[in-house]
Amino acid sequence: MRELGKQQIEDIALGATVLGTGGGGDPYLGKLMALNAMAEYGNVKMITHEEVPDDALVVPIAFMGAPVILIEKLANGNEAKDALKMLEEKLGKKAFALMPIEAGGMNSMAPLALAAELGLPIVDSDAMGTAYPQLQMVTFTLHDIPSTPLAQADEKGNRVLYETISNLWSEILAGNAIIPMGGACVIACYPVLGKQLKKAGIHDIVTYSEEIGSAIREAKNNSLNPVKTLIEKANGHLLFEGKITDVVRNTEGRFLKGLIKVEGLNDFSDSKMDIDFQNEFLMAKVNGKTVAMVPDLITIVDTETAKPITTETIKYGFRISVIGMPGNEQWRTEKGLEIVGPNAFGYSEEYQPVEKLNQ
Amino acid sequence: MRELGKQQIEDIALGATVLGTGGGGDPYLGKLMALNAMAEYGNVKMITHEEVPDDALVVPIAFMGAPVILIEKLANGNEAKDALKMLEEKLGKKAFALMPIEAGGMNSMAPLALAAELGLPIVDSDAMGTAYPQLQMVTFTLHDIPSTPLAQADEKGNRVLYETISNLWSEILAGNAIIPMGGACVIACYPVLGKQLKKAGIHDIVTYSEEIGSAIREAKNNSLNPVKTLIEKANGHLLFEGKITDVVRNTEGRFLKGLIKVEGLNDFSDSKMDIDFQNEFLMAKVNGKTVAMVPDLITIVDTETAKPITTETIKYGFRISVIGMPGNEQWRTEKGLEIVGPNAFGYSEEYQPVEKLNQ
Repeated sequence: MRELGKQQIEDIALGATVLGTGGGGDPYLGKLMALNAMAEYGNVKMITHEEVPDDALVVPIAFMGAPVILIEKLANGNEAKDALKMLEEKLGKKAFALMPIEAGGMNSMAPLALAAELGLPIVDSDAMGTAYPQLQMVTFTLHDIPSTPLAQADEKGNRVLYETISNLWSEILAGNAIIPMGGACVIACYPVLGKQLKKAGIHDIVTYSEEIGSAIREAKNNSLNPVKTLIEKANGHLLFEGKITDVVRNTEGRFLKGLIKVEGLNDFSDSKMDIDFQNEFLMAKVNGKTVAMVPDLITIVDTETAKPITTETIKYGFRISVIGMPGNEQWRTEKGLEIVGPNAFGYSEEYQPVEKLNQ
Repeated sequence: MRELGKQQIEDIALGATVLGTGGGGDPYLGKLMALNAMAEYGNVKMITHEEVPDDALVVPIAFMGAPVILIEKLANGNEAKDALKMLEEKLGKKAFALMPIEAGGMNSMAPLALAAELGLPIVDSDAMGTAYPQLQMVTFTLHDIPSTPLAQADEKGNRVLYETISNLWSEILAGNAIIPMGGACVIACYPVLGKQLKKAGIHDIVTYSEEIGSAIREAKNNSLNPVKTLIEKANGHLLFEGKITDVVRNTEGRFLKGLIKVEGLNDFSDSKMDIDFQNEFLMAKVNGKTVAMVPDLITIVDTETAKPITTETIKYGFRISVIGMPGNEQWRTEKGLEIVGPNAFGYSEEYQPVEKLNQ
């Protein structure tokens, strides 16, 4: 068990945004909510999955909605509490701890404000290891853990509880409700017992986010090259360096889809990169040849500062470096690829590991 | 308390379709489900609102969705039970009786199959006295009775429980979920105690439906004019008689909207009628002058048989009689008109009672 203070929160938000591969939203609002709650209620305590008793209840808390709307929409601050309360009532059991569902900017922060307010610890685990755009795309699905009961709350005070026949149906129904709810909401879902979490979670991921964030921050303070530092820290590959020449985006239902075109600079001059996204960066090609694909991580950072850039803020003219990192081993199995492999996102290409594509 | 057999069910379905003013769907599927369940489990018992103990729980059961889809979509027969069970679990209390929410073809039948299966009585009351297209348009809203907890179930086995900030928000959220659910579902909503129902319900409405249905049936058997018989029985006005020359319909979200044009025959030759609908018939004009409007009832029946015609089955060439009937007194108050008056449906006209417009 350790305590997370302001610096840790800043580093986690930065590192999780790197791991979020363009998705999971900008951490700004979530960070504000977390820091504000910690100023009022005290720092958040974080425990490892091993510190969770086998029969204790852990509840993931997440924002749900298009990142571009999450930025604009004000939360009322009670959504997470409303959702958790509805879930606890249904289960007849109190949460022992909260956890993030994914490593994304916004959602790495999602459980923190509520954890501070209720004095609950968060667990140093999530269920994606990155940020994926759909609710069923979690390692819990690999272990047949249901997403339900799933509670959803909006900023107006509406609460909805789902009991579905599959995690995909939770995605369909809870995702569909986001539109009348105004584009964003908070969910409490995948309630897990300690013994389930130990088996199915992606562990020490918050600490890993923090390490990445602090490495980038310290590189800047120590006049090191931040992109190089990040690549070393994250076991990554420099896939490309260049200038963004075009961004095409369109909001499809609750998803932000699009394509980014990049013209090479330095070692990559005379080359072109295309990056496809659906909330997250999914597929990167250099001169038409794939260099990284989901479930491996494709992150775009500012070439000067290594600050990660999310799909909703990326713009023409940005000078960027594109980094590929191996995805979590749970996702690189046959069953994992069924859920978050390239085919699951509509690509016909077979998955090939980033380290093989860039050896 | 009395028992409803096959003949009563047939008469109720027919009479409720008259009161449903074109909405609430064709009773065919609901009647089949009711008769089938009664053949298996025995007849349904019906009690009056006075026979419900003040502290007993009564739960309205309703189909929700566009009537045109309700016709095509097969139910699995467990939706109503799933929804009721979810609601009872949430309330921690068992239903003493079920009831219909509206007097419409399909929804007059909605609670019957489940009532037969569970051996529960239905109450001879509803909360519309006709069929309205939205969930908040019930007399319960006039009495500040919340629609929630509201449970919704689809034929796949998904269940959703709503706790909303208003009855309008239940309409928005539960209505929105119908689309991914495939266009139709069953809801258990507005759980009321006996004492609330006694104050807020529209009473003896099932019996009234049955009386209208049996009057039409018997007129045919006794060689009386069925339309005249219906008008006498229902305290109605013959607004028009003619032939349908055009029907324009479009599905907007879960609503079937449109306009019917009728050319006069017999006493009405050289006149034209326009009838606007949104699931239900809302506004009828003869030669541009309004002759009836919501919340009064506008019913279209076959001129030969007095068989009511619903908005989704009405067609070019039908020979019809249009009948206006006074709406329930609860709706003709200032507060009632706010919820289901012409302005609530987007018309700028002020409400005028059908008996005044046709005196």
